[in-house]
Amino acid sequence: MATVAILGAGIMATALTFPLTDNGHEVRLVGTHLDRDIIESIQQSGLHPDLDLTVADGVTAYQLEDAATAFQGVDVAMSGVNSFGVHWAGEQLAGLIEPGMKVLSITKGMETDDEGNLTILPEVLKSKIAPELVSQVTWSAIVGPSIAGELAVRHDTAVVFCGEDQASLDELAQMFRTDYYHVWTSTDFIGHEVGAAMKNIYAFAAGFAQGLIDKNGEQGQRYGRFNYGAALFAEGQTEMEQFMELLGGDPRTARGLGGVGDMFVTSMGGRNVRAGAYVGAGVPFSEVRDQHMKGVTLEGVAAIRKVGSALAPLTDRGVIRPEDFPLLRHLYAIIAEDAPLEIPWDSFFTAPGMPVTGRP
Amino acid sequence: MATVAILGAGIMATALTFPLTDNGHEVRLVGTHLDRDIIESIQQSGLHPDLDLTVADGVTAYQLEDAATAFQGVDVAMSGVNSFGVHWAGEQLAGLIEPGMKVLSITKGMETDDEGNLTILPEVLKSKIAPELVSQVTWSAIVGPSIAGELAVRHDTAVVFCGEDQASLDELAQMFRTDYYHVWTSTDFIGHEVGAAMKNIYAFAAGFAQGLIDKNGEQGQRYGRFNYGAALFAEGQTEMEQFMELLGGDPRTARGLGGVGDMFVTSMGGRNVRAGAYVGAGVPFSEVRDQHMKGVTLEGVAAIRKVGSALAPLTDRGVIRPEDFPLLRHLYAIIAEDAPLEIPWDSFFTAPGMPVTGRP
Repeated sequence: MATVAILGAGIMATALTFPLTDNGHEVRLVGTHLDRDIIESIQQSGLHPDLDLTVADGVTAYQLEDAATAFQGVDVAMSGVNSFGVHWAGEQLAGLIEPGMKVLSITKGMETDDEGNLTILPEVLKSKIAPELVSQVTWSAIVGPSIAGELAVRHDTAVVFCGEDQASLDELAQMFRTDYYHVWTSTDFIGHEVGAAMKNIYAFAAGFAQGLIDKNGEQGQRYGRFNYGAALFAEGQTEMEQFMELLGGDPRTARGLGGVGDMFVTSMGGRNVRAGAYVGAGVPFSEVRDQHMKGVTLEGVAAIRKVGSALAPLTDRGVIRPEDFPLLRHLYAIIAEDAPLEIPWDSFFTAPGMPVTGRP
Repeated sequence: MATVAILGAGIMATALTFPLTDNGHEVRLVGTHLDRDIIESIQQSGLHPDLDLTVADGVTAYQLEDAATAFQGVDVAMSGVNSFGVHWAGEQLAGLIEPGMKVLSITKGMETDDEGNLTILPEVLKSKIAPELVSQVTWSAIVGPSIAGELAVRHDTAVVFCGEDQASLDELAQMFRTDYYHVWTSTDFIGHEVGAAMKNIYAFAAGFAQGLIDKNGEQGQRYGRFNYGAALFAEGQTEMEQFMELLGGDPRTARGLGGVGDMFVTSMGGRNVRAGAYVGAGVPFSEVRDQHMKGVTLEGVAAIRKVGSALAPLTDRGVIRPEDFPLLRHLYAIIAEDAPLEIPWDSFFTAPGMPVTGRP
């Protein structure tokens, strides 16, 4: 049996303790500075207050100041924070991981610099670690359609462990696999990380249809707006695939769990969809951000801002065509420039190789 | 302005009259023997009783015995019946179409023979027509995510007109395009027809999650089964893409409106999803068919039976591997052999070229 330490005690990090402990592994769950109440609750009663579930006996909870104790000598060191905490998490892990450990991250997404160069978040994590240590551990990440609570109550969940080292992926997958947690492995690290970022981006667009229904007073009417949502989903899929290829990933990753599967589950609801619904209803995004959803963590919106801001420099540099990524460009205009929602239908489905022709 | 005759007065055929008449075209809507009441209602009051909408002034309704009058001299001859009526529709059209017409079909899907050879339904239509006439008309079809009622109330709808002749596709698309009906064209006839059949197949699987929730008394509980649905959706997508390629279509069609877009909208609800929910709840399919949904048209189930029955001969002939299409094989076992639902998770995502590895 192995020992696993997880930095972060949010719902996803904690959900992952269920398959691990079901398999007899020992898990040390370390809260961030934002998780103090969660850790206290688990230490006192075993209850994770946000999941509303009791963790297994094999889970020990630690406050952040005890992180060094928790991580000492573990087989697997996990980053369980979301994309907003990636820099902080990297800095923490720099002092916690040791040679020979397998690093496994649930932190997903991309960052961009001023020239539009995009970096997947596992690389951001690595950038905080001493180079000699980086090469003495292995780097992997969990992606795919996984609502944390569903996993925590042991509902069937199928994911991909992606990373650089197949042997580590195989070992990690073996540690986590149960009859309800179905794990595939992939060395297409980039493709899967791009998918993880892009699915959050298009989840925002998935809210537009409901917003239009609200705006037009169509609630309860016989005909919804699924055709509209399906068209955005399909364009999102083509743009995701194109982005995977652009960054050097395998475009075929878009068709599986880490692509369309993850986009499907993320489109079914959640905070990004809710934010998109406000925009669909005609609310300028700045008002959504500053009033209706003030203080709410919106990973999709953050991803639109980061990835979207890369499109102009990438276009200027000739890396992409001006007509590429029309939906993502519009989403960026909505959140960065308060543009009103106006779907650029005629520019859809023009990705290179798409076997369709649009309006002349 | 053009004249269009449509054989069939169901909700999809009738929904298509809205963009046509909005563009000033004349439409002659011809009921089948099953549509007598619909035609009578439209003739008397303009009301389509199933859509619960009044058709435009530019639509004239004809009973079947007046079909020859309706089709005489039209520019476009449409088949507006569903896949169950394709042989009948072909036989009717054989006597109605004239050289120079553009034939446009909404009849979608595939048929199979005993050796597992699959034929797209437009070919079945053609097979009923005299060969010299077949070559004197052009053949096209409408595919993509389109709930009829949403189109009829002029909600944004994005589709693909696919066919053999690009010039005809351009003309047809131009006739139908409005500010709410967004039309792309494609000469990947096979890929799009395969997508149209496969999306109905996987819609049946989209009902399983709800059935499991019902069976386990999880209604109203905090955590649903979206992870499960997303995994089936992703596997469906990989199988759809593989099938397109197998039959000589363009696998890239799977990523757009005629693939994932159509599968998305079809998964959101409808009769096939409802049938799948019964199976998810543990009801043998024969009982669903003979009791709970007796007499209900299930195009998805019919497609599973047709396409699924081709898998064994195709495997025997070495055209596909035994491990190909695991979800479709299981769906076939459910509807043809009353197999209980048991998702073969470990065989998923093994399509050739998929950049993931499963359980060893």
